[in-house]
Amino acid sequence: MRQLCKGNVAVVKGAILAGCRAYYGYPITPASEIAEAAALYLPQVGGTFLQAESEVAAINMVYGAAAAGARVMTASSGPGLSLMQEGISYLAGSELPCVIVDVVRGGPGLGNIAPEQSDYFCTVKGGGHGNYHNLVLAPASVQEMSDLTMLAFDLADTYRNPVLVMADGFIGQMMEPLELEYREPQIPEKPWAVKGTAETRKNLVSSIYLEPDELEAHQRKLEAKYARAQELEPRWELYEAEDADVLLVGFGIVSRVLRSAVEEARKKGLRAGLFRPITLWPYPSEALAKAAANVQKVLVVELSNGQMVEDVRLALDGKVPVEFYGRVGGNVPSVEEVQTELMACMTSLV
Amino acid sequence: MRQLCKGNVAVVKGAILAGCRAYYGYPITPASEIAEAAALYLPQVGGTFLQAESEVAAINMVYGAAAAGARVMTASSGPGLSLMQEGISYLAGSELPCVIVDVVRGGPGLGNIAPEQSDYFCTVKGGGHGNYHNLVLAPASVQEMSDLTMLAFDLADTYRNPVLVMADGFIGQMMEPLELEYREPQIPEKPWAVKGTAETRKNLVSSIYLEPDELEAHQRKLEAKYARAQELEPRWELYEAEDADVLLVGFGIVSRVLRSAVEEARKKGLRAGLFRPITLWPYPSEALAKAAANVQKVLVVELSNGQMVEDVRLALDGKVPVEFYGRVGGNVPSVEEVQTELMACMTSLV
Amino acid sequence: MRQLCKGNVAVVKGAILAGCRAYYGYPITPASEIAEAAALYLPQVGGTFLQAESEVAAINMVYGAAAAGARVMTASSGPGLSLMQEGISYLAGSELPCVIVDVVRGGPGLGNIAPEQSDYFCTVKGGGHGNYHNLVLAPASVQEMSDLTMLAFDLADTYRNPVLVMADGFIGQMMEPLELEYREPQIPEKPWAVKGTAETRKNLVSSIYLEPDELEAHQRKLEAKYARAQELEPRWELYEAEDADVLLVGFGIVSRVLRSAVEEARKKGLRAGLFRPITLWPYPSEALAKAAANVQKVLVVELSNGQMVEDVRLALDGKVPVEFYGRVGGNVPSVEEVQTELMACMTSLV
Amino acid sequence: MRQLCKGNVAVVKGAILAGCRAYYGYPITPASEIAEAAALYLPQVGGTFLQAESEVAAINMVYGAAAAGARVMTASSGPGLSLMQEGISYLAGSELPCVIVDVVRGGPGLGNIAPEQSDYFCTVKGGGHGNYHNLVLAPASVQEMSDLTMLAFDLADTYRNPVLVMADGFIGQMMEPLELEYREPQIPEKPWAVKGTAETRKNLVSSIYLEPDELEAHQRKLEAKYARAQELEPRWELYEAEDADVLLVGFGIVSRVLRSAVEEARKKGLRAGLFRPITLWPYPSEALAKAAANVQKVLVVELSNGQMVEDVRLALDGKVPVEFYGRVGGNVPSVEEVQTELMACMTSLV
Repeated sequence: MRQLCKGNVAVVKGAILAGCRAYYGYPITPASEIAEAAALYLPQVGGTFLQAESEVAAINMVYGAAAAGARVMTASSGPGLSLMQEGISYLAGSELPCVIVDVVRGGPGLGNIAPEQSDYFCTVKGGGHGNYHNLVLAPASVQEMSDLTMLAFDLADTYRNPVLVMADGFIGQMMEPLELEYREPQIPEKPWAVKGTAETRKNLVSSIYLEPDELEAHQRKLEAKYARAQELEPRWELYEAEDADVLLVGFGIVSRVLRSAVEEARKKGLRAGLFRPITLWPYPSEALAKAAANVQKVLVVELSNGQMVEDVRLALDGKVPVEFYGRVGGNVPSVEEVQTELMACMTSLV
Repeated sequence: MRQLCKGNVAVVKGAILAGCRAYYGYPITPASEIAEAAALYLPQVGGTFLQAESEVAAINMVYGAAAAGARVMTASSGPGLSLMQEGISYLAGSELPCVIVDVVRGGPGLGNIAPEQSDYFCTVKGGGHGNYHNLVLAPASVQEMSDLTMLAFDLADTYRNPVLVMADGFIGQMMEPLELEYREPQIPEKPWAVKGTAETRKNLVSSIYLEPDELEAHQRKLEAKYARAQELEPRWELYEAEDADVLLVGFGIVSRVLRSAVEEARKKGLRAGLFRPITLWPYPSEALAKAAANVQKVLVVELSNGQMVEDVRLALDGKVPVEFYGRVGGNVPSVEEVQTELMACMTSLV
Repeated sequence: MRQLCKGNVAVVKGAILAGCRAYYGYPITPASEIAEAAALYLPQVGGTFLQAESEVAAINMVYGAAAAGARVMTASSGPGLSLMQEGISYLAGSELPCVIVDVVRGGPGLGNIAPEQSDYFCTVKGGGHGNYHNLVLAPASVQEMSDLTMLAFDLADTYRNPVLVMADGFIGQMMEPLELEYREPQIPEKPWAVKGTAETRKNLVSSIYLEPDELEAHQRKLEAKYARAQELEPRWELYEAEDADVLLVGFGIVSRVLRSAVEEARKKGLRAGLFRPITLWPYPSEALAKAAANVQKVLVVELSNGQMVEDVRLALDGKVPVEFYGRVGGNVPSVEEVQTELMACMTSLV
Repeated sequence: MRQLCKGNVAVVKGAILAGCRAYYGYPITPASEIAEAAALYLPQVGGTFLQAESEVAAINMVYGAAAAGARVMTASSGPGLSLMQEGISYLAGSELPCVIVDVVRGGPGLGNIAPEQSDYFCTVKGGGHGNYHNLVLAPASVQEMSDLTMLAFDLADTYRNPVLVMADGFIGQMMEPLELEYREPQIPEKPWAVKGTAETRKNLVSSIYLEPDELEAHQRKLEAKYARAQELEPRWELYEAEDADVLLVGFGIVSRVLRSAVEEARKKGLRAGLFRPITLWPYPSEALAKAAANVQKVLVVELSNGQMVEDVRLALDGKVPVEFYGRVGGNVPSVEEVQTELMACMTSLV
């Protein structure tokens, strides 16, 4: 079924196809259409939509529904996402699967409602306390808003961990063709959940481990799980990277600008290529190292002051020089701007 | 004046000497003695102590007092600190000075009340949304709990930015001699504050910049400020680093174990040294690169799953191999454990 | 279908039979079994149970569901009911139907969890601001816990007004036979509701009337409705009242003690009778005046410091002397105690 | 010192003269100037003003300060007052002195911001749960806004009970000459308070009494206190009442209209008089009964649907016919309207 669809709405369509039947949230621009679509569609499939009194309330309801074994989600933008950090840390500590969509707006503080990518640290490094990781997916199209949301639910259950879908205001607000295919959601058994039945009465969902050795053992178990994800789940896309002299790195809306910049550069005889991370955590570090093995320079472009660039530098570990170009406040670099930066990179290579 | 004092109490003594007269918080182990001491001492100097109904309420009161020009602080541990992330992002975005003390406990989620250093990402990378940095200080003794809190107030005013003092449960709970010296607090004029007077009526404290160009300009201003801090404020300590073959890196309570490990190693003929970052942001990257210029290996030890190690690797950029050793859940590595790790490093060098 | 059932559980069974499919609340002794039963049974009939983060949150969710046209309820005890007063005033002002069950415990403040009837003023006179009335029903048995809850839903829809079921801890906690008969719930059309459909998009549910004349007109409309309820809805029960010299007045658990006291008195040759109000608002004042027309004294017994006694005195308007006997804190007067009071009344008549 | 002053500001001036040094509240029209004045003046006398995050937070801060022995106040209007009902019940149950000013606006629900007296039931009968009374004072001028606030603090301490000052939007917003006289506040010793000192460490401020007999004994103690207040504290004003045929009864702004109506009536040869209750609880029932002993009719006028009229009827107990005339929504009856009602009363007497 092909349709023209807004990115934020595509999130909900994907979620429902993935078997999500519960949404708890509080609206915030530019993520509000997600709440609106959830309010409209979830009741139609026998699901629950609830506008909570705050993001703190919402994320704790997500915790409750996840503990009961439901496929559950919420969505927000920066300020709301910040308020959810305690809850996210609890979800990770309790190994509860859930999907959280962050449609990033300008910050810090109130900022504005224009697109940024400045929640990277908050989502990827972990804005809440303690040793944990969120899985983070970065869609670059309306189709991916739906597809990666579906994937997010599967990963959440596979790893019993919160999965974030981090989009930006552009991807959330734009309309593009969306192809939806019905599939029977593969929801695993959750024998650990508290389902209100006699046999699950003994189950206890908690993140508390009072004894140091107990908490350390729990942490080691989490780390083993994270290592597994780092091995199996990195996702990325390459474009004209094979013979590139300069490798552009960017995600989300930025990757679309970079793709055009690659094409423009190639027209001018500059061998540019593109590496687009699809998973921000686990970061596709090996794939990036491999893709950059023969390039002379890497240029990272972000709608931020430079956050993902740290992961790029960690991945390359000094083997290739890394440059950064960022715009913020809702300004998105144009193809021409990127060209100029590319030129500067090339020149400095001479 | 020399006295035996608990780390958490030393924080409050330093704060009062620095001219802090307002505390808004919510108690949480292992930070509760800070609230208790603030409740006891602040009224004695004409100050205000208020236990808010939640950490969300507390950090917003901090915002209010800071906007009015007061030297103000709060303190918490992981779960509470997570709840404060929205407020911290607002404080940073509005360029408001304040001091936030985080006495780290085990996580994620409820975890336990034993010491960890696992809030590093949350405090140093920024757990709230948007492009901002906290200045972060890491005391390693009761004396520093007081001294660095005093420094925190000065830095907060200098940079008009939140400053975090990130301690761990050990440093917070231990008793050591404390030397306090009265000094007249040097509180700068704050012509931007909203003081309830006619001349400050026009002042507006906000983090909202609706136009992209406006927000970008604001962000560039913040970045210039952060660059200044990165140039001027890195602080660190070296111990036996000059001729070291292996450089140990650790902060807080860990640095004290590492110091003993260096001594033990030297007794055995191994040239080990210690680099202790005192500021976690700005990270003393240059100093570290310089200190590590001639070592064969760097061993980072943290009470976490490996968070600061990323900043170490970013600082060294592949020039020196970096190993990591971490304990969590409240377990602190012993000198012997560190010795064993050191040995392993040395051996692998052969 | 006859079964042995707890009063609090009977409430939920009646609610479901009445077509209630939504429950929002926060548990509190001695009302918690209502939440438990709602959590168990509502999902089985496709309904929603939600434990909110506070009673303030819960009553505002009730407002939302009622505005959407659903049959919705909550339950609490004193402290929680007090927190709901703003919401109840809003529901009344917006003419929204809902059912609120108050299982009264000892007060004021925390008091204790033993039965009282001391929320009479709060529920009957109206604890929230403004000119409004709740309809209030006072069950005296497990059967009535179910029957009056069913009636409450019908009255709520008929009058578009909150209806309270005010029980006490005894009625809530006791087990008695319960006879349930399935009936098809008669839920009226609600063209005023905001149902998420195109045709109800224009509907506005609000309690705001900025212009004085507008608000006064709204108030007169409410008053006309209340007058209709006062004419049509008073409910009461008489026992041996026809030839009585002394009329006992009491509701809920007290009425059962009074009934025994009447029997004991009659055995001793004293002509005592009982008037039991079933609706506390509208108060059955006319019926009481008629029943008391020929008695020499009225003795009001309450588990309070004397609250309903005001309505008795207003109903009788000085025509019959009114005495009061009250116990509080969870103490319920025994038949013997009531006998002694009755004797004192009789003696003072001589 | 004589000055022109707004009613809401006069409240704060009186409070400060009475030794109040702490204000916790949340602004709401038409009470907001009280918060503004408190924010301005309290810091000037070394006091604390705090805008809480909600009325629920505010009243619990009042609880805390009162428990610490401070003279403390808050102010609000209908919706906020409703949210405070749990807190007020706790204050009464814990026997904590405090002053709460209610500047009544239109209700129920949001209503409007125009003056009403429709919080009578909520303040006088007790909108919170359990058996308790607030003392309630009803100012009718700017001078009384100050004087009765001062009295309120004294009564609060004398009876260790919440005292409400219930004004209406007119009295709160109007400007009139105010005469302030400095007096040294007579604040009693409060050996029961928790002052943070060694000797008060054993004190426990609570409203919990788990055993029925304990709670009943506590309640009897409260009742003895209330009886004392009912004996000593009723306050009222008479105007031309001695030879009246019709007695007008009204409080607050209404009493000023009624006074003019009395004068107009007398000009026309109708012997009208006025009874103005100053304390709404304890209600001056005896004084009213005495004043009405020889009248032929009583006409109660309120800015409500008829709430105080119940206390008038209870006071007169059927001995004199009682009529009611009410306006709502912010409409205040004119002298002419009252004249017409008076005439109707007189005519019906013939």
